[in-house]
Amino acid sequence: MQLAAAGHEVTALDNYLRRQIVEASNSEPLIESPDLVERSRIFEEAAGRTIDVVIGDCTDYQVLSETFARCRPDAVVHYAEQPSGPYSMSSFDAARLTINNNLNSTFNLIWAVLEHAPECHIVKLGTMGEYGTPNIDIEEGWLDIEHKGRKDRFLYPRQAGSLYHTTKIFDTDLLWFYVRMRDLRVTDLMQGPVYGVTTTEAELDPRLRPNFHYDDIFGTVVNRFLVQAVAGLPLTVYGAGGQTRGYLNILDTLQCVDLVLQNPAEAGELRILNQFTESLSVNELADRVRRAGRRLGLDVQIGAISNPRKEAEDHYYNPVHTGLLDLGLKPHLMTDDVLVEMLQLVCEHRDRIRHEIVMPRVRWGT
Amino acid sequence: MQLAAAGHEVTALDNYLRRQIVEASNSEPLIESPDLVERSRIFEEAAGRTIDVVIGDCTDYQVLSETFARCRPDAVVHYAEQPSGPYSMSSFDAARLTINNNLNSTFNLIWAVLEHAPECHIVKLGTMGEYGTPNIDIEEGWLDIEHKGRKDRFLYPRQAGSLYHTTKIFDTDLLWFYVRMRDLRVTDLMQGPVYGVTTTEAELDPRLRPNFHYDDIFGTVVNRFLVQAVAGLPLTVYGAGGQTRGYLNILDTLQCVDLVLQNPAEAGELRILNQFTESLSVNELADRVRRAGRRLGLDVQIGAISNPRKEAEDHYYNPVHTGLLDLGLKPHLMTDDVLVEMLQLVCEHRDRIRHEIVMPRVRWGT
Repeated sequence: MQLAAAGHEVTALDNYLRRQIVEASNSEPLIESPDLVERSRIFEEAAGRTIDVVIGDCTDYQVLSETFARCRPDAVVHYAEQPSGPYSMSSFDAARLTINNNLNSTFNLIWAVLEHAPECHIVKLGTMGEYGTPNIDIEEGWLDIEHKGRKDRFLYPRQAGSLYHTTKIFDTDLLWFYVRMRDLRVTDLMQGPVYGVTTTEAELDPRLRPNFHYDDIFGTVVNRFLVQAVAGLPLTVYGAGGQTRGYLNILDTLQCVDLVLQNPAEAGELRILNQFTESLSVNELADRVRRAGRRLGLDVQIGAISNPRKEAEDHYYNPVHTGLLDLGLKPHLMTDDVLVEMLQLVCEHRDRIRHEIVMPRVRWGT
Repeated sequence: MQLAAAGHEVTALDNYLRRQIVEASNSEPLIESPDLVERSRIFEEAAGRTIDVVIGDCTDYQVLSETFARCRPDAVVHYAEQPSGPYSMSSFDAARLTINNNLNSTFNLIWAVLEHAPECHIVKLGTMGEYGTPNIDIEEGWLDIEHKGRKDRFLYPRQAGSLYHTTKIFDTDLLWFYVRMRDLRVTDLMQGPVYGVTTTEAELDPRLRPNFHYDDIFGTVVNRFLVQAVAGLPLTVYGAGGQTRGYLNILDTLQCVDLVLQNPAEAGELRILNQFTESLSVNELADRVRRAGRRLGLDVQIGAISNPRKEAEDHYYNPVHTGLLDLGLKPHLMTDDVLVEMLQLVCEHRDRIRHEIVMPRVRWGT
């Protein structure tokens, strides 16, 4: 919507996979959201701009190939992946779906670009989760290594905490291979967890709001804590709560995509940018939600529970994130005002909160 | 056959995928080879030991699951992959088959072990090609990195030269993930190109010989050079010929598998061993074949051709390979005697040599 509003010709291709597995996982979002065709119609009414919607599966090469043959795009933003870590850890079938959907979508995209639009700039959604939590500083995608008196530059070593995040490592390996062999132009945006409900389009019509998942499988920890705060449930800190990640306002996600589209990667370049604006531990996040809740008269409790995941609960975390700032990113930080605004939205929909989908339903290692 | 001869109960599971794509690629081996069922029968007659043969596809979970449920093996040796770099670079369909076959076989194997034999030692065929040709020494799978005054240990950075080799990187990422999450026992044998035609079983009956491919797609450079020497064709050095790899006699491949089975990895351990015995450049290999040919009165010419691959033709290469020596490996090196014996076998079958499948049919980057 942002790109269409700015005057670009936009085609959106989706097969509703996330919607289907959200439903199959009993993980409905807090706020109902119209489907893509309907959102496109609402957007056209509100903004006077059209988005061409194609309903199809990116793992079917014909679908991608025909779309690329018709559009010959200058750029493609690749979000066509199963995005939930807990879902990928929930069963054999979910794991297999995640691997095959994510890797085949990426593979087909590469070939559609090679076949129909070789100059097309591929903007790939990566994730900070690919790096895991190493004991050294996390650089932006690459690492200069000196070993026994000799030097080379490598992809920064990756070691992820869920199968989903591991599939994003496959994507990186695959894209980097074809960048070297076929001179693709690729920008990999290593995104941290995103929060926020306000966008320019949501202000046009509330039905154009971003999705708001709060359950244990598709929700982020931010949304889960906000919903628990409103519902009078203790914030479920997993284990010691020292797990630290880089967070990002959805306004900045949109800004970042716009900035890299305006400044494309070179042919034969895999440009990797760490896309977050501030690092927070789970405990710090819980404290912020409690503080914001107090402004609305909510008495927010924090309650640690045993960690359903296998992960470091107290670790070093110092990732570089200067690349997007250098391109012009103006961060919107997670202030109390932002959290209060989100809490207010949750309050409006509090009757839809389902307590039973907030607690962990998926355990790592079983 | 070696394991059955030593008294182990052996089940072999294969779907003849390699045979099928060898045929579809017009890449028949120099020497005809009976199928697995027939080889098992010949072996039983010659050695008095049975091998249980199952014809089935490892990408079909039911097949693997039923086999594991029945056998509950102490160890599994995983060779169930599409193994040709050039094939993986030959078309969209070949690339997609390579990715999906290799990753789904590995994925299903992991789950069959978890479901039916969680203590089973997985011996995985890796490849030295996963490392590529970095400008620093190649360690055995792992690298200790010091960065800005802090330290951590990582999977050695991988950057492969074909899509096939890239799928082996996916395998490593996937196995390492489930080792961490589910305490699998895994040994990854990072094998270099294998040569040799003599094994204990081949001495029982020549129909039990290893496969001998010499074409550009399934053959190794060693076999191609031997066939060219016998056929009076110049040895086709790709480009400058400084491409250096670690080679291995098939007798040592068998020894290595035996050694690691006798010394399994611990639960929760991904043990990575570099499996080769000597490093040679393509030019050095060509010189050796010429020298061995002279002993048989062959006048061997060497002719460089433009490189069909995208690869470094002159590079640093210093990989560590002490792990298997420490376990007891006694190397059989590539002496003139070994090459002469292979040349003699090729001479016996010289009327089957097809000149048209020796030159490159697949080019990288098109």
